[in-house]
Amino acid sequence: MKIGILGTGMVGNALGTRLVQKGHEVTMGSRTANNEAARKWASSLGERARTATFQDAAAFGELVISCTGGMHSMEALKSVGAEPLRGKILIDVSNPLQQDKDGSIILGFCNTNSLGERIQKAFPETRVVKALNTVNYDIMIEPSRVPGNHSLFICGNDAAAKKRVTQYLSDWFGWKPDNIIDVGDITAARGTEMMMPLWMRLFQGVIGHPHFNWQIVQGQ
Amino acid sequence: MKIGILGTGMVGNALGTRLVQKGHEVTMGSRTANNEAARKWASSLGERARTATFQDAAAFGELVISCTGGMHSMEALKSVGAEPLRGKILIDVSNPLQQDKDGSIILGFCNTNSLGERIQKAFPETRVVKALNTVNYDIMIEPSRVPGNHSLFICGNDAAAKKRVTQYLSDWFGWKPDNIIDVGDITAARGTEMMMPLWMRLFQGVIGHPHFNWQIVQGQ
Repeated sequence: MKIGILGTGMVGNALGTRLVQKGHEVTMGSRTANNEAARKWASSLGERARTATFQDAAAFGELVISCTGGMHSMEALKSVGAEPLRGKILIDVSNPLQQDKDGSIILGFCNTNSLGERIQKAFPETRVVKALNTVNYDIMIEPSRVPGNHSLFICGNDAAAKKRVTQYLSDWFGWKPDNIIDVGDITAARGTEMMMPLWMRLFQGVIGHPHFNWQIVQGQ
Repeated sequence: MKIGILGTGMVGNALGTRLVQKGHEVTMGSRTANNEAARKWASSLGERARTATFQDAAAFGELVISCTGGMHSMEALKSVGAEPLRGKILIDVSNPLQQDKDGSIILGFCNTNSLGERIQKAFPETRVVKALNTVNYDIMIEPSRVPGNHSLFICGNDAAAKKRVTQYLSDWFGWKPDNIIDVGDITAARGTEMMMPLWMRLFQGVIGHPHFNWQIVQGQ
């Protein structure tokens, strides 16, 4: 499968590497075609890994994964434009995190909006699925790092796209479909993005590392 | 123990009932001393259950539980004033939920503020502990309704107060202390209150009932 990854950070790196290892062709997009982090990533992985601009990476992919810094995702996607994304599934992995005046990590927007919604609204002919944004990048690609069952939340307006993404997450990374919880239309991204402040507290505080996840436990 | 409960809704009812059953003396406070819901609650429970104004209920309690509707908690507490709450532990159980223009449930404020912080700031001589706000009222008082281990998050500025509340939650309701996670100072209430949008989605959507909880699962 041809996959375009937008973003050259740790998330893009981890996802791209695992997808190339799984036999897919991956083009990592950034602001410029010659981004150094992207070239370094591609050179370590052989010919199935390439680099390009955001626009060319999106055009390359049958499926596109948006994992730029969440406060910059809209700008990156605007540089792509509607055409290269038309009709495609776009998996939005990012959270709109930013630093507050006092140094704490907050969301740049939330509650009545979300990054997932903003993308879907700006690209109405793209099938946006929010996923993976509630776990660290190394858990995204290897959920077995956390023992037992634990949950992943996905949402989006297109039921068929969510089904396909659920299957991809299982095939690519080993997420058990039963642990992937469809929380509704793309406005549910408000809820999954708003998990971040507590996630950060657990990471920076009592747990002290990012290798944990939430499990939804149901009673009667 | 003498406990003041502020709020006559389902949460106040459930907590108050269980505490009376456990042998405590509980006064349920509301705007007026003769609130009908409060009187009905008290009359079903015998002499250890009483009703009063917010102020008198707070003055009565060695410990106070704030469980008014979260958008009205500050107003209720302002009617109490600082003196009846001075030096006491106040457990803040509420979330500042309100209905958005489109009917969806949002937080009235979040991200850079929280109800827990607002209360602590307005009552600096009260030991505010945020707890129980991430589960439904019937899970609060009977965590075994959800099988196995599942997590409760508490936060606050006073470590000794958090320890005592952890013990109370265990003694009163059966929460296992190992499942009660101290997520830090009172600003961590931002994170626990911001769990609500996803909680609402799960409740109204894929799960369809409120008898579930989060469990933090850790890897290496």
